[in-house]
Amino acid sequence: MISLGKLAILLVLQDETEEALLRQRSNVLGYRIYKGKVGSMDSAKIFAAVETAAKREGFISSNYREEHALYHSILEAYQGICRGHSGLGNVMRSAGLLFCIARGPRTPGNQDDGDWIAVTMYGYMGAPMKGFEHEVLGLGMNPI
Amino acid sequence: MISLGKLAILLVLQDETEEALLRQRSNVLGYRIYKGKVGSMDSAKIFAAVETAAKREGFISSNYREEHALYHSILEAYQGICRGHSGLGNVMRSAGLLFCIARGPRTPGNQDDGDWIAVTMYGYMGAPMKGFEHEVLGLGMNPI
Amino acid sequence: MISLGKLAILLVLQDETEEALLRQRSNVLGYRIYKGKVGSMDSAKIFAAVETAAKREGFISSNYREEHALYHSILEAYQGICRGHSGLGNVMRSAGLLFCIARGPRTPGNQDDGDWIAVTMYGYMGAPMKGFEHEVLGLGMNPI
Amino acid sequence: MISLGKLAILLVLQDETEEALLRQRSNVLGYRIYKGKVGSMDSAKIFAAVETAAKREGFISSNYREEHALYHSILEAYQGICRGHSGLGNVMRSAGLLFCIARGPRTPGNQDDGDWIAVTMYGYMGAPMKGFEHEVLGLGMNPI
Amino acid sequence: MISLGKLAILLVLQDETEEALLRQRSNVLGYRIYKGKVGSMDSAKIFAAVETAAKREGFISSNYREEHALYHSILEAYQGICRGHSGLGNVMRSAGLLFCIARGPRTPGNQDDGDWIAVTMYGYMGAPMKGFEHEVLGLGMNPI
Amino acid sequence: MISLGKLAILLVLQDETEEALLRQRSNVLGYRIYKGKVGSMDSAKIFAAVETAAKREGFISSNYREEHALYHSILEAYQGICRGHSGLGNVMRSAGLLFCIARGPRTPGNQDDGDWIAVTMYGYMGAPMKGFEHEVLGLGMNPI
Repeated sequence: MISLGKLAILLVLQDETEEALLRQRSNVLGYRIYKGKVGSMDSAKIFAAVETAAKREGFISSNYREEHALYHSILEAYQGICRGHSGLGNVMRSAGLLFCIARGPRTPGNQDDGDWIAVTMYGYMGAPMKGFEHEVLGLGMNPI
Repeated sequence: MISLGKLAILLVLQDETEEALLRQRSNVLGYRIYKGKVGSMDSAKIFAAVETAAKREGFISSNYREEHALYHSILEAYQGICRGHSGLGNVMRSAGLLFCIARGPRTPGNQDDGDWIAVTMYGYMGAPMKGFEHEVLGLGMNPI
Repeated sequence: MISLGKLAILLVLQDETEEALLRQRSNVLGYRIYKGKVGSMDSAKIFAAVETAAKREGFISSNYREEHALYHSILEAYQGICRGHSGLGNVMRSAGLLFCIARGPRTPGNQDDGDWIAVTMYGYMGAPMKGFEHEVLGLGMNPI
Repeated sequence: MISLGKLAILLVLQDETEEALLRQRSNVLGYRIYKGKVGSMDSAKIFAAVETAAKREGFISSNYREEHALYHSILEAYQGICRGHSGLGNVMRSAGLLFCIARGPRTPGNQDDGDWIAVTMYGYMGAPMKGFEHEVLGLGMNPI
Repeated sequence: MISLGKLAILLVLQDETEEALLRQRSNVLGYRIYKGKVGSMDSAKIFAAVETAAKREGFISSNYREEHALYHSILEAYQGICRGHSGLGNVMRSAGLLFCIARGPRTPGNQDDGDWIAVTMYGYMGAPMKGFEHEVLGLGMNPI
Repeated sequence: MISLGKLAILLVLQDETEEALLRQRSNVLGYRIYKGKVGSMDSAKIFAAVETAAKREGFISSNYREEHALYHSILEAYQGICRGHSGLGNVMRSAGLLFCIARGPRTPGNQDDGDWIAVTMYGYMGAPMKGFEHEVLGLGMNPI
């Protein structure tokens, strides 16, 4: 069984072949998923990339309740990749990330609990110099 | 190609069948991996569980340099699952976690960069009440 | 016009006469409110006091979505009284607090946005010694 | 009885009629108060608005002791509105705030304890989009 | 010229011979200094040790203004030794510290600025295992 | 006996005469040391100044392991001068700093533990106004 968070993590990690399988499985289970890419020393650009994708792809209705749930999921995923010291350019580091947005029940078929939204970020953070970076990962999720 | 961090994340997420495949692949690529389990409202118990496993399984030599690298990887993974508000019992929440320790080059065959150690934590955090919890995830890694 | 957050702040600050007027006004506007009291050096006791009151008084249904919204509102109010350095007894300080829980639309009659839950805390924080303390205040709110 | 912090909170919340009454009461009790307004995605502008008002209105003498007390009160109020995740534009959110500065004894007539300075901030924080925001509140106070 | 903070740092670092010279110099310049020792996994014990010494040695008058300045200086020094991740036993680490309290003008003979209080902590933090620890240092200071 | 951290702290504090003596002592004990200067409201400039000096002076080899150890030492020293509230210009404050980089064994002649790198920062932080500032200090160190 694949839960919402696990789905969003696997999706952000996998290459194209495995991704296609995950997409099929998601559809069957009633999950919506999106995978995108963003890199920056400016943390606001990471927030903007995920928010824009979520709106454009129709992951959230245009009301504040849903935008609030999305925002907090992004913020929590961002805290995960920062590991206790928030900030990118201001502490001279850069991030190159894949991100995933997933929406659906916390576990497949869980009807009592409504939809949740999960955001994952996976990639590299480090000095603004090629190869001087290591993997980072973050997951945030909230009821929507 | 599977990097050290990705390996540690996949291992912590997968069920037993996929885990066996990952273990084979790890051996071939020169990675050592371990998977364990811990649940508590007391954050020190989570640190202790990972440290004890790493020592017992011989992931670190008994010197402070390696212990220091392990400790900081645990701390960073812990920050990931906490998402900006460190603490468990003191803020009335509990964590039930699987964790993974992986040691080896950052990318397979990367000989110039020595060994790194990665710690991942995946599981559920929430109110100390069954089902009132959601998925959390953390990854920390350091040169060792 | 009185919004949900403002209502929760005024309620936690006011004495009994003004409180009665606020309660009348809340009823008319469709807000539910509760005011309680808790003091401790143990932050978990503050979380428990608000959670227990919210459940006992029926502010949240017994599902995780609502519990999650309540929990994050408590956590945010707690961050407000801590002002950047989370912790009470571990940094040798104590808090004596009144707290308020309010539930309803963000602004009276706002039908599009559903219910939100607000938690306020007001009181004194300081050395565990009479009079060696000053006022603190926190507000957290989330869609529920 | 109205204490310094409570006065600063009520002042920042109230509309003009109630504000006039609070001002009279403050004068009688020996408190100085000021109410201003600032909105920005740039947190430095919020600090600057409060500092400038405090100096222009003569709330602090031109020495570092008093400036230090004011600064830390602003910083604490700012932490209150941020609720654990410091930052505005860098995490893609904006704040529209009223702020209040109050100076006087911690409680009316308390002669032993000298003057304290309190800073409150109240308003809305959220996405840089009209209506996509909720109430926030912060209080900081220090001896001056 | 030796300023208040520098004095408190040098004092916490030096051995007994150099300490005696610093003490003489301090007396001449109108500074009061104290040096003590504390070790624990329980952060509250560190706060208590410094507070108790400051009171017993008469560094602060028994009023809240001075206690507040002392407390915040301890908190800031503690943040310095923790370097971004507050906590000791809860994150499985221990501290063995020398601490120093110094009171006087920010710079010798500076009459306009009144007294300040500085707290320094210097020692070792690490795993609760002999030798598995490294040096840490913190300085906090506030007007008193 | 002078350990690596203590050496880096004394070096950053001392004036030129004492510095010359420390340099001689360092050479004998097998330590490499560097002292530089940086002032800014932009925290990234502080990171850049220390990184650039460390590279130019050959404190680190051009590989990511060593760069990572240096970066985390800078980050920890920076957290020390910030004392719990990371940020400079964004919270309207400025820092004028001396910094020191030291590399060698944790204690002189300690052959089992390899090299460590220590970064210290000492100077003044405060309002961007002459004299409205006080002393700050930070130390970070990691195995390299």
